Amino acid sequence: MRGGGDLDALIAGVREARPRAIGRAISLIENGSADLPQLARALAPDTGRAHIVGLTGSPGVGKSTTTSALVGALRAEGQRVGVLAIDPSSPFSGGALLGDRVRMQSHALDDRVYIRSMATRGHLGGLAAAAPQALRVFDAAGFDTVLLETVGVGQSEIEVAATADTTLVLLAPGMGDGVQAAKAGILEIGDIFVVNKSDRDGSQALIRELRGMIALGERDPAAWKPPIVATVALDNHGIDELVRCIQGFRASQVVNGQADVRRVSRARREVESLALGRLRAQLSLEGRAGLDELATAVSRGEVDPYTAADQLLAR
Amino acid sequence: MRGGGDLDALIAGVREARPRAIGRAISLIENGSADLPQLARALAPDTGRAHIVGLTGSPGVGKSTTTSALVGALRAEGQRVGVLAIDPSSPFSGGALLGDRVRMQSHALDDRVYIRSMATRGHLGGLAAAAPQALRVFDAAGFDTVLLETVGVGQSEIEVAATADTTLVLLAPGMGDGVQAAKAGILEIGDIFVVNKSDRDGSQALIRELRGMIALGERDPAAWKPPIVATVALDNHGIDELVRCIQGFRASQVVNGQADVRRVSRARREVESLALGRLRAQLSLEGRAGLDELATAVSRGEVDPYTAADQLLAR
Repeated sequence: MRGGGDLDALIAGVREARPRAIGRAISLIENGSADLPQLARALAPDTGRAHIVGLTGSPGVGKSTTTSALVGALRAEGQRVGVLAIDPSSPFSGGALLGDRVRMQSHALDDRVYIRSMATRGHLGGLAAAAPQALRVFDAAGFDTVLLETVGVGQSEIEVAATADTTLVLLAPGMGDGVQAAKAGILEIGDIFVVNKSDRDGSQALIRELRGMIALGERDPAAWKPPIVATVALDNHGIDELVRCIQGFRASQVVNGQADVRRVSRARREVESLALGRLRAQLSLEGRAGLDELATAVSRGEVDPYTAADQLLAR
Repeated sequence: MRGGGDLDALIAGVREARPRAIGRAISLIENGSADLPQLARALAPDTGRAHIVGLTGSPGVGKSTTTSALVGALRAEGQRVGVLAIDPSSPFSGGALLGDRVRMQSHALDDRVYIRSMATRGHLGGLAAAAPQALRVFDAAGFDTVLLETVGVGQSEIEVAATADTTLVLLAPGMGDGVQAAKAGILEIGDIFVVNKSDRDGSQALIRELRGMIALGERDPAAWKPPIVATVALDNHGIDELVRCIQGFRASQVVNGQADVRRVSRARREVESLALGRLRAQLSLEGRAGLDELATAVSRGEVDPYTAADQLLAR
């Protein structure tokens, strides 16, 4: 940003939900701009209203198609809908690939829908801090629901999906996903399970397997029991039922106070990640030369990594 | 551990490559035991010899099958082979699922092979610090090659795979993997690409797509050009060629000095992650009450997260 006036205009634009302003704000977040603290401060009072729905699952289960179908269903209810797709862009390919975002073009002319993918390479606090901040931009812009799409494999990605107000875990038959998903620790974060591509062979077996795992994980009989919704998102099949499940879960969370608990826990992760990011920046700024030297010694077996870490912190 | 004598016995056992000792050492790492600095210190002088080969790719591309086939081929050359599978265990399912590890049972009676999966829930420095430490245990135990299998989606997982001495990126046709893998930033870390299940429809198209992407990424004509190996790991098809590619890459890395560069960079990540883990622990120990309060204020829009992070660090 060139000056304070530009930032003021940007902030006003976000509040008025102008697409270009939202896009620029999220670019600032992606790049870890020095203006972020000021942006965050200005938007804070307008946040806390949007319902954040996380969608996660392995590549190929149909996350983007399901997101697109949900956008249609929520728009039909008159909602304003945002989509944030976390999508580490590849320097190899020279940027993010459009790929299946193309499917979302049907919503591109709808001015009550805003779709944006985000990389987080430049951000101080990584994905854990960048995603909540981008959600805050959507929130301040007055979107009713924000769909947050993340790849459902990977520590950071799963943690981000887990901090949504409502988390959908998507699976599809025929990808060895039942077992594979359990391996990656994704099953315990699902508030609602979606078996997409349910017209394919193996979907009944997958639903059975999932049902067994949910029963196995049940501890408290009063706790929410994650429903399983079978969909064929490409044909909009099952999407209305999915919307009802999402709304049912949301209502129960608001009533029992868990909605606030989740929101605080999302803020906690965000603040902690920003604080750690700041410490990390200090560490590599002050300790760069020392770290190289210590790493060389560790790689030669001259020092163990714990002693090296202590020496790094001591400097 | 109960006392120093136990730890001494464990260290001696690792040096003699006793399976039970290796297993216990990795459990200590998983759980973030207080004995880790002492263990790391004792093993440091014996490290620096093993060749770490990372295998990564989306769920379902056949990582475990390929790992198992590679174990067989490397054993046939007389090597001692370790396998470390990073596999976040699920409290939902009550522990890690065996799943396709079963396929590796053919090696279970071979005492020059050691196979182990690892979760990293308890570890201070997360996956980035835990994986190199476990590799160090294999290294000190005298394994010639250690195959490190990680899920190839997710920031941390990809970073860990990228710090292996040699990184294999696996793909398979018919999973939308060409584009999906590029999205997750996995393509730029491959030293060697493996198109597994290459007897299936679409494998030629995938190889072509991959070749195009490699050509696109080429900057320096003198740099290593990642070969693409077509395999059907289940039938051992293409595995000998893959082994030759791995050895060719390794030889070129040793000659041009890049082998040392990678090793130092792995140590750097490890030391940095341990140092950050220590800072994080301090932060949550000293700042827990403060963090809850700040997170609540952020979730209500009363404070922005940057100001909250500053206040947390100031305490």
